[in-house]
Amino acid sequence: MQHLLPIQYEPILERALAEDIGSGDITANVTIPADRMARAIVLAKSDGVLAGLAVACRTFSLVDHNIVWEPHADDGERIGDRQPLATITGPARGMLSAERVALNVLQRMSGTATMTARFVALTEGTNARIVDTRKTTPGLRLLEKYAVRCGGGFNHRFGLYDCVLIKDNHLAAGGGVAATVARARAETGHTMKIEVECKTLDEVREAVDTKADIILLDNMPLEFLTESVRIIGGRATTEASGGVNLSTVAAIAKTGVDLISVGALTHSAPALDISLEFD
Amino acid sequence: MQHLLPIQYEPILERALAEDIGSGDITANVTIPADRMARAIVLAKSDGVLAGLAVACRTFSLVDHNIVWEPHADDGERIGDRQPLATITGPARGMLSAERVALNVLQRMSGTATMTARFVALTEGTNARIVDTRKTTPGLRLLEKYAVRCGGGFNHRFGLYDCVLIKDNHLAAGGGVAATVARARAETGHTMKIEVECKTLDEVREAVDTKADIILLDNMPLEFLTESVRIIGGRATTEASGGVNLSTVAAIAKTGVDLISVGALTHSAPALDISLEFD
Amino acid sequence: MQHLLPIQYEPILERALAEDIGSGDITANVTIPADRMARAIVLAKSDGVLAGLAVACRTFSLVDHNIVWEPHADDGERIGDRQPLATITGPARGMLSAERVALNVLQRMSGTATMTARFVALTEGTNARIVDTRKTTPGLRLLEKYAVRCGGGFNHRFGLYDCVLIKDNHLAAGGGVAATVARARAETGHTMKIEVECKTLDEVREAVDTKADIILLDNMPLEFLTESVRIIGGRATTEASGGVNLSTVAAIAKTGVDLISVGALTHSAPALDISLEFD
Amino acid sequence: MQHLLPIQYEPILERALAEDIGSGDITANVTIPADRMARAIVLAKSDGVLAGLAVACRTFSLVDHNIVWEPHADDGERIGDRQPLATITGPARGMLSAERVALNVLQRMSGTATMTARFVALTEGTNARIVDTRKTTPGLRLLEKYAVRCGGGFNHRFGLYDCVLIKDNHLAAGGGVAATVARARAETGHTMKIEVECKTLDEVREAVDTKADIILLDNMPLEFLTESVRIIGGRATTEASGGVNLSTVAAIAKTGVDLISVGALTHSAPALDISLEFD
Amino acid sequence: MQHLLPIQYEPILERALAEDIGSGDITANVTIPADRMARAIVLAKSDGVLAGLAVACRTFSLVDHNIVWEPHADDGERIGDRQPLATITGPARGMLSAERVALNVLQRMSGTATMTARFVALTEGTNARIVDTRKTTPGLRLLEKYAVRCGGGFNHRFGLYDCVLIKDNHLAAGGGVAATVARARAETGHTMKIEVECKTLDEVREAVDTKADIILLDNMPLEFLTESVRIIGGRATTEASGGVNLSTVAAIAKTGVDLISVGALTHSAPALDISLEFD
Amino acid sequence: MQHLLPIQYEPILERALAEDIGSGDITANVTIPADRMARAIVLAKSDGVLAGLAVACRTFSLVDHNIVWEPHADDGERIGDRQPLATITGPARGMLSAERVALNVLQRMSGTATMTARFVALTEGTNARIVDTRKTTPGLRLLEKYAVRCGGGFNHRFGLYDCVLIKDNHLAAGGGVAATVARARAETGHTMKIEVECKTLDEVREAVDTKADIILLDNMPLEFLTESVRIIGGRATTEASGGVNLSTVAAIAKTGVDLISVGALTHSAPALDISLEFD
Repeated sequence: MQHLLPIQYEPILERALAEDIGSGDITANVTIPADRMARAIVLAKSDGVLAGLAVACRTFSLVDHNIVWEPHADDGERIGDRQPLATITGPARGMLSAERVALNVLQRMSGTATMTARFVALTEGTNARIVDTRKTTPGLRLLEKYAVRCGGGFNHRFGLYDCVLIKDNHLAAGGGVAATVARARAETGHTMKIEVECKTLDEVREAVDTKADIILLDNMPLEFLTESVRIIGGRATTEASGGVNLSTVAAIAKTGVDLISVGALTHSAPALDISLEFD
Repeated sequence: MQHLLPIQYEPILERALAEDIGSGDITANVTIPADRMARAIVLAKSDGVLAGLAVACRTFSLVDHNIVWEPHADDGERIGDRQPLATITGPARGMLSAERVALNVLQRMSGTATMTARFVALTEGTNARIVDTRKTTPGLRLLEKYAVRCGGGFNHRFGLYDCVLIKDNHLAAGGGVAATVARARAETGHTMKIEVECKTLDEVREAVDTKADIILLDNMPLEFLTESVRIIGGRATTEASGGVNLSTVAAIAKTGVDLISVGALTHSAPALDISLEFD
Repeated sequence: MQHLLPIQYEPILERALAEDIGSGDITANVTIPADRMARAIVLAKSDGVLAGLAVACRTFSLVDHNIVWEPHADDGERIGDRQPLATITGPARGMLSAERVALNVLQRMSGTATMTARFVALTEGTNARIVDTRKTTPGLRLLEKYAVRCGGGFNHRFGLYDCVLIKDNHLAAGGGVAATVARARAETGHTMKIEVECKTLDEVREAVDTKADIILLDNMPLEFLTESVRIIGGRATTEASGGVNLSTVAAIAKTGVDLISVGALTHSAPALDISLEFD
Repeated sequence: MQHLLPIQYEPILERALAEDIGSGDITANVTIPADRMARAIVLAKSDGVLAGLAVACRTFSLVDHNIVWEPHADDGERIGDRQPLATITGPARGMLSAERVALNVLQRMSGTATMTARFVALTEGTNARIVDTRKTTPGLRLLEKYAVRCGGGFNHRFGLYDCVLIKDNHLAAGGGVAATVARARAETGHTMKIEVECKTLDEVREAVDTKADIILLDNMPLEFLTESVRIIGGRATTEASGGVNLSTVAAIAKTGVDLISVGALTHSAPALDISLEFD
Repeated sequence: MQHLLPIQYEPILERALAEDIGSGDITANVTIPADRMARAIVLAKSDGVLAGLAVACRTFSLVDHNIVWEPHADDGERIGDRQPLATITGPARGMLSAERVALNVLQRMSGTATMTARFVALTEGTNARIVDTRKTTPGLRLLEKYAVRCGGGFNHRFGLYDCVLIKDNHLAAGGGVAATVARARAETGHTMKIEVECKTLDEVREAVDTKADIILLDNMPLEFLTESVRIIGGRATTEASGGVNLSTVAAIAKTGVDLISVGALTHSAPALDISLEFD
Repeated sequence: MQHLLPIQYEPILERALAEDIGSGDITANVTIPADRMARAIVLAKSDGVLAGLAVACRTFSLVDHNIVWEPHADDGERIGDRQPLATITGPARGMLSAERVALNVLQRMSGTATMTARFVALTEGTNARIVDTRKTTPGLRLLEKYAVRCGGGFNHRFGLYDCVLIKDNHLAAGGGVAATVARARAETGHTMKIEVECKTLDEVREAVDTKADIILLDNMPLEFLTESVRIIGGRATTEASGGVNLSTVAAIAKTGVDLISVGALTHSAPALDISLEFD
């Protein structure tokens, strides 16, 4: 599974800490003696899927490198209400100053993983993978794409840079499916796959002929999806997109598409309730 | 209303663009001629409250300073499905490269404003203000706190630095309500208000006696809230917190508390559907 | 007392080191063997109040993490000429490269603490607190506000963000004391105190009626200060400002004001003489 | 005279603005209408030498690019109480938000220029140049070295990187004046001058023999300075350092030294009183 | 062709200017009057292929926004000795301060484009594309990959993030070609192509069976390359790598491989001689 | 020899790693188990001079602080094909993710050192030092200037800030050699040397009379160089520049000039082949 390096997420935590601590934690400074030590448990407060435990715990040691932590669960694991996830030990003042940022990170990441797992569960027994989109929180894409993997989903492209995805506006400028895909093939590096958005069955046929790697079936009714999968016949990867929610995803998956992309995994997943409880 | 300065949000946009564009928008680069101009409408796709229009539109000119925009609505305004919010004009390539980041910002901010407005509507006719918390998205707190104001809510403290908020762990270390508040009063600058969390009516009485500025009534049942408000009798600002959702907020507001703080405004508001439609 | 976190001051030290070391310490590089070890004492060269010892000593380990230090005094402590403040041990080259930046930080912070202590001493026996202003060195506000606390003073607001302070230009735009304070009260979050500047006794009376939290008595003669304190009668915190120096502060304190704000603590305190002496 | 480029000082201003504005200018936001325009004069409040006018005025346009300014004086010019220095025009809100940072910069820079001019005046009629040191405010060295030039002084090295300066600890490690200077000469690039600190006349004689470019006469009594100048006889540049203040500088200058370095120019100059007055 | 956005390269220029200008251009400051205007021509001093003209010219306006430029040639164009490439006009001081950085950028980028064009010319008449590697200058990869495109080459992956490339050490850990490719296919997002390095014909056969998208033929003699192309028979893209230089590339291209990757395009291309000549 | 501090080069490595790793090393993530340990040798693949070993090895521990390294050679040392330079041990995944950046740094720095050593060898037996120029790679100047020292060369100025170098355009604006040097002498700090470019023997004579510290003999034929050295007669340092390459450098050195500056050391040195071989 995709692995996150500290050099990829520490700047996110540092900015979040600067945002929250600002000119100082004036409450902890006057109420907690500098030498007071503490122990606290990161505790699930509801059921879900865990994501971001190491990232969140790193927050504490960025505030005070004397704070250490021990994990009791793994990212990607189903967790239940009142389950202890990690133990944090160290100077109390720094633990209190870091608490909110750590939980904000962990709750969001686990919220996305949990939402992803719900979609994945509804597609069980089909070949369809649940994949994310670029509808992520500004600045947190790596964390959220990682959380989608924790929830059993897969990643679509990470940005504008790692896959060609030709949408309607590109097609309009490029002169239709065949001409635009051909031009992209000629101009783009050989490592890049080419995906093209289709809204009609005619476009789907044209896309197959151009040997697009992936065909995005945008906002199609179920019967069109089924027919598209039949037309494509394995000659391209198929992706359904648009109108996907917890009520519709199972039926979409049964049309035989390879991928179902869901913006809600990252733009509308509620935070998972997780708290820090001091001994 | 709180106003956002470009120097406060431009770095957020620049990081989001770097995250999305990375080594280049390989699709736009090969499909859109460099000199192609375009016009597009930022369009609401559902009902809600607008927040972040200027922030979002600034994204386009950061990508290409030849892109200009004209607003058709104001932040804080109720918007309806298919309502045009702004017109963007300029080089097509840059508009397509910036589109996703701009919408990600606008949809999240408007999602928070819309959620806030729902809570505010349910407290109408009472004195209770809906306020936010520090349960915000790492790195986006200023944008989200601004969005809460657009939705008719008010802001709680912005971080650990601008208000003393003594919670249970601080009380445990500080020796109870009276001693801890007194120490905070003695040590903290005169510009800082002191808020103290109370879980029992006895604590509430003690907090009033210490002349705390704000008393946080944490997770209290309705009758305790009512009784706390009676005990305090206007000698401190009262804030209800915990267990607040769209089903419970109206009853909480009727207890007479001054403030109701709601984490969900910022940690669990779904994005508002807004799109960019090219002519 | 306010506590500084490494994540708050290390970037200041890193920028100062970059500024001083630039393309390299060409003297140490050619005169000091790479493996030469050294021991040096941070030594007071005059009497004063210490501030910033840990911050300054951190400079050495940022240059070479093999340099360690042991403190012999505490911030806020009165120090005398020739008093050893800390022992620094490690590779000589790095110690010499870091020396100037470390001393620049320590001398300035201790200079501010020392100046503050002089003002505080002159108000002894009164209720007046000496407080700082926003007239701080660009980029060093946190360090200087911390130094004021070390000298026995207290902090006024840290910036434009943590207290409403309505001055003459705001009053002019806002329509006078009563209207402007009322509007600020209605629009600002409940955690923010509201201070208003008054130049006349009539304005003072108006400010009390508006229930401003703090009343700034700007550049008033002593008898006006005394009368203002009488008028306010404890219904607001009182702050004297303007024309405060070492000759006038005692008399101002005796008028009964709660706070005396002094720009000179941070904009005109001479550095305290402290040196590094190698064994 | 040394010229400052915007790319050299704008990051300093941006950090200072972030430090002061933080999560927002809550006073201006609620009291000043967004469309209110204003005009204000940057006004001297005491006599001195101006430094940093363009730098300070740039602060305003960084907050709001609609703010413009017109200078009425030049850096390096003697200014008198009540003299208008510049006119600032634009949206009132941004002008008020930027005011403090702009004045903090201008007052400090002009304070250093003014202090420098006092030292320079006392050396008139001699050949001695007043030069600065590395005892500058962390992060502001370029601004302060520029201000020294505005006051009629000259710059010593800018950091550890642009001149070899062999002090006592280097000499101890390097084996005395002759050996250390010789090694520095052999190892260092040809563009670098070599300065060596001498505490005795014997060291001075040795330094002349090694053909050091500059000889630093450290903390010498006047008669030793005079004798050193005689010994050196123009074969090296001479610099007096240590114990230099407004009472001693004239006599030191008369010993015939080429340079007198004064740490107080940058570490202990009080701010010059300058204000912003709105129409 | 790949297009570079200012937000992608301006930070590179800003760092390069900071590196070169440091504490100030002391020569221009004292020799060029502040109001002196100038006009200069960017002039080719040898034959080659142009790359980076807009990037280089942007350097001048970063130093002084009053400097403007007019291009006389396009990136990707063959240029000859003494050909004028652009005219730069504006304040002379800023033009001189920016000159070296601008030329450093332009000479390196054009050097890479020129080297690429030499390799491309030698493969004319074959189907082989010349592609770059990750052996680029730290920090300049985007500029160099763009320059390769200007020279007629194509881009391999931009980093570790946009294509799976399984090399010998990955194969060793992953259990051989078939197992490792299968695992990568199962775990990686559908947008990513999978390339696998083969050293023997047996590995090539195994790679074809695993349906790897691209097969890297590493350091193979010509006859093995030919045989590999035959075995693969169009079922995967073929890439020759290792031992490619101007003497060998033509023969390699004739083996029928699709791609020839050349590290020397970016790690060993000499700078192209280009100068700035003032009127 | 010039020493590089981690605070000077770590940001370069961090940027290079961000550039290469981007959203993640997708190959290592799916093929290398997280707990797999490895050992690898940094191995020379051709003869040359080593530079940057510590810098390159630091790359590995920036990716994973559990990776350690042991050097087997020193910077500045001649190395031969197949010579082991360092052993790297630690988690395999991080070692593979860091490999390319580490080698890119080491190959370039050693390439420059090797090229420098070739020039230095050709001047043996003369007094001429080989020196570098400002024609360095944007962002890597410190590393490259250090590499020149490793190769036996010396450093010219590091930037526009540490030596006055008056070239033709400065002379044109300043009114010729005598006037321009005199003005620079009067205006510039005493620590700065003044170098002036001369194209004719008359200019050389004028430069000697102005007591310029260094005289740059630009693009002069050998007999003019010889004559210039004779005219100057030790009264200034002499530097030959222009048209210097491996064929011409020996003859230039024999003219008696003190310095020969060579842009090719840094703008056109091919990378030295060095690899990482896993056990």
